[in-house]
Formats: sequence, C-alpha cells, structure tokens
Amino acid sequence: MPTRRIKLVINYDGTDYFGWQRQRRQRTIQQTLEDAITHLCGVPVELFGSSRTDAGVHALGQVAHFDVDTRVPTSNLVKAVNNLLPQDITVVRADEVPPTFDAIKNTKRKLYRYGIYTRPVRPVMDIRYCWHRPGKLNVETMTQCADMLIGTHDFKSFANASDKRASSVRTITKCTVTREENWVLIDVEADGFLYNMVRNIVGTLVEVGRGRWTPSRFADILKARDRSFAGPIAPPSGLCLMRIEY
Amino acid sequence: MPTRRIKLVINYDGTDYFGWQRQRRQRTIQQTLEDAITHLCGVPVELFGSSRTDAGVHALGQVAHFDVDTRVPTSNLVKAVNNLLPQDITVVRADEVPPTFDAIKNTKRKLYRYGIYTRPVRPVMDIRYCWHRPGKLNVETMTQCADMLIGTHDFKSFANASDKRASSVRTITKCTVTREENWVLIDVEADGFLYNMVRNIVGTLVEVGRGRWTPSRFADILKARDRSFAGPIAPPSGLCLMRIEY
Repeated sequence: MPTRRIKLVINYDGTDYFGWQRQRRQRTIQQTLEDAITHLCGVPVELFGSSRTDAGVHALGQVAHFDVDTRVPTSNLVKAVNNLLPQDITVVRADEVPPTFDAIKNTKRKLYRYGIYTRPVRPVMDIRYCWHRPGKLNVETMTQCADMLIGTHDFKSFANASDKRASSVRTITKCTVTREENWVLIDVEADGFLYNMVRNIVGTLVEVGRGRWTPSRFADILKARDRSFAGPIAPPSGLCLMRIEY
Repeated sequence: MPTRRIKLVINYDGTDYFGWQRQRRQRTIQQTLEDAITHLCGVPVELFGSSRTDAGVHALGQVAHFDVDTRVPTSNLVKAVNNLLPQDITVVRADEVPPTFDAIKNTKRKLYRYGIYTRPVRPVMDIRYCWHRPGKLNVETMTQCADMLIGTHDFKSFANASDKRASSVRTITKCTVTREENWVLIDVEADGFLYNMVRNIVGTLVEVGRGRWTPSRFADILKARDRSFAGPIAPPSGLCLMRIEY
C-alpha cells in the first residue's frame, strides 16, 4: 500500500505536559500522540506539529501531519486514537492530504488567545486556563499598544533571548484586547511567532494596563529590538493556540 | 482569648481529591484545608463541612465552620490560608459567627448544578467539569420529569442503597433542565440531599432524555421508593455544589 499523509487537528489541555515536543525524560503531547498512533498503526510514526507549544500551554486547533502505509481509514482513526489517548488530549479530525502538505511549512496564519482573570477570588475551575492576576487593567491603553503591533515589524524585543532564528520579522494581522466579565482576553494573529512571543507581548501589555508603563514607552520597546526592554513573560497557563490557517 | 467560631465559604475543583471527608490514606478536601488552617493557627482545628461531596465533585460555595482561640483576624485569614492551599482549593471568605451557628445543622437549602456536554468532540478544557455524553437529549421530556420531583417526596429511589438515614423524605424547591449551546444543565435545589441523590436523579433523567424511558415510567420510579428502579448513577465530574443558604 502506498504511503499516505494524514493531517490531524488536535485539542489539548497542556497543564500536565512538558509542552508539545518529544523529550527524553518528560511526558509531552507529541510523544503521547505518537505512542497512541504507533500502537494503532502497528508501525512507528513521527508526528510533525505546526506549533511547538510550551509546557502548560493549551491548544484548540493544533495541526500536525504524519506518514503511514497502513489501512486504517481516517474516519475510524479519530475514534480509535481517542480511545487510546488520555482525557486531556483529543484528535478532532483526521484527513488524508496530498504528500505536498506540510503542517509546519504551509502555515499561513496562527491565532493565539491569552486569558487574564482579574477578580481576586482564585477561579478554581479556570485556574489551569488563565493567568490569575487580580487588579484593574486599563484595556484602552493596552489596545493603543496592541494597535502598534499590527503590521510587519521586527519583534526581537518580544522573542526569548535564546531564539536563534535568522529573522525576527513577522506580520501581525490582528491584536485585540477585550474585557469579558472578569476576564481580559488578548488575541494575537500572525503569519508566525517567535519563541515566547505572545507571552512576552502579554507580559508587556500588562505593564501598560496596570499603569506602570505608558503607550509611548511600549512604542520604544518595540523599536528597541532588545528583549531586555520588554516586560516579564506571562505564565503559560493563560495561553491557548486557537487556530491555524493553511 | 475566648474561642471564636469561624464560618468559611470554600471553592474547589474536586478532580484530584477523594471527596470532602478526611480519610486515612487518601488526599481529601477537608484534610487539605484542616492542615492549612492548623498550620496557620498553630493549634489543631477540626472543620465541619456542610456537604460531604464525593470524590471528583466540585464546589463553588461549600460552607464549613471551625473553632479556634488564636488571634488571626478573619480578613488576614483568607489570604494566609489561600497562600498555603493548592491551586484547586480556595477560601472565598471567612467570617466570625455566633457559637450557635452550625454549618451542617443550620443549612436551609442547597443548590447543585450538573453539566452534561453533548457534542462528540471531547472538551479537553472542560472534561474535568462535565459528563461528556455525546448525543441528543430531549430537554422537554426531561423537564416533565424534573417537574415531578418538585415538592416534598420520599426520594428513596434516588438514594444510594447504602444510605441509612432515618428518613429519605426531602423537599426539592427547584429542578430545571436547560440547554445552553453544547450543554444540558440540570439544577436541583433542596432542603437536603440523600447520598448520591443528584447523580442518581441525573442518571435517570438522561434515560428519559435519550428516549429509552418515558416520563410515566419516571413517575413510577419516584413512587417505587426502591433504588433498583432508577437509572445508572451519573459520573461525579459533572456535579458542582453551587450554593448553601442559611
């Protein structure tokens, strides 16, 4: 049977994993999925995930692909893999795609959402999915800063210092800050993200929202192209990969 | 210093606990709270919780009391205890109450909510807080049955067979079944509950909602006063103690 390429859409609660990428001694999303699919197909498979989400980061729409030459139909695959997966990971759909499809290289746009819970009482049933940060945040000044990020910029100030990719230029197509009851939600959509980019943007926006920094200082941070200018990194629990477009 | 009685309002995600009540070898909510308060007060305290929620059941409004003769002001107590508690338990408020107040005996009404998630895709970020039961449920017939429960009845059919309390007569003041997007929510308010009563009611309502049993059979089950007539027990994850009135 010829090799087929399968595209998966995957959701997970990342709390109890050391991120997406397979690691030698830690439990990761990639390894958990590969083990389940390998068990099902009877041959070792390697999964290529579009986003290497960090430890504690969640996904409702991660995309990955793998190659396999067994007969399992994609319709049965979803159910069968889900039966093998723990409760906090699920395959939403599986489709056979042309061998030219590449989950990593063909990405056009990704959307991340970051959730900050602002009430003092610890939200015990949302604590895994938020940054619990009691106190007021000025959504108006945060939005002024978010607007500055839209377009093509060098986002080096918001990249983890260890990010060694050749270019730190990316295009942000959407960046909004909205209040919904006890939450402040930050949506960022771009053609690609540097390592820790959303969490560094959120951490810096919060410095503005709490009144410690001004939007004009935020403009200087973006221009500086130097991580040491930006604010502290926001915790992983508030971050969720929402959608990947191809 | 004279002994003071302190009333606590407590929220928790019960997933990782063997229920409220202290047990010899298992991690429980009561024990985790008692350990934190004992550590803080410097003297052993015993906590009296209004509801002995089962393993995996949640609470947004559990009430408990304890007696203590140390000086910790109640305003500081909340913050200090929360610093000692794990992320999935929190004390919402603490108030000094008259020594006649009893969290267990003075309960007037309790409200429980049960959540059923009905879409096929496993809700990874809600899986701890729902019964994931894909498929259609007829909210209209379920509501007909819920209406039958309102009032004072002998609920023996919905009590765990091991419940040896003298009387199984309780008064249900509210019982509603509502659809909200991908959820079916069942709210039950009563002056008291038998062991596993809400979960047995939900399990039986679902037999009606899926079309296996009729509302008239449901009426017979209530009349039978025999647990073997009712449906299977619903899983604990969907249940949350919402409010206790005094």
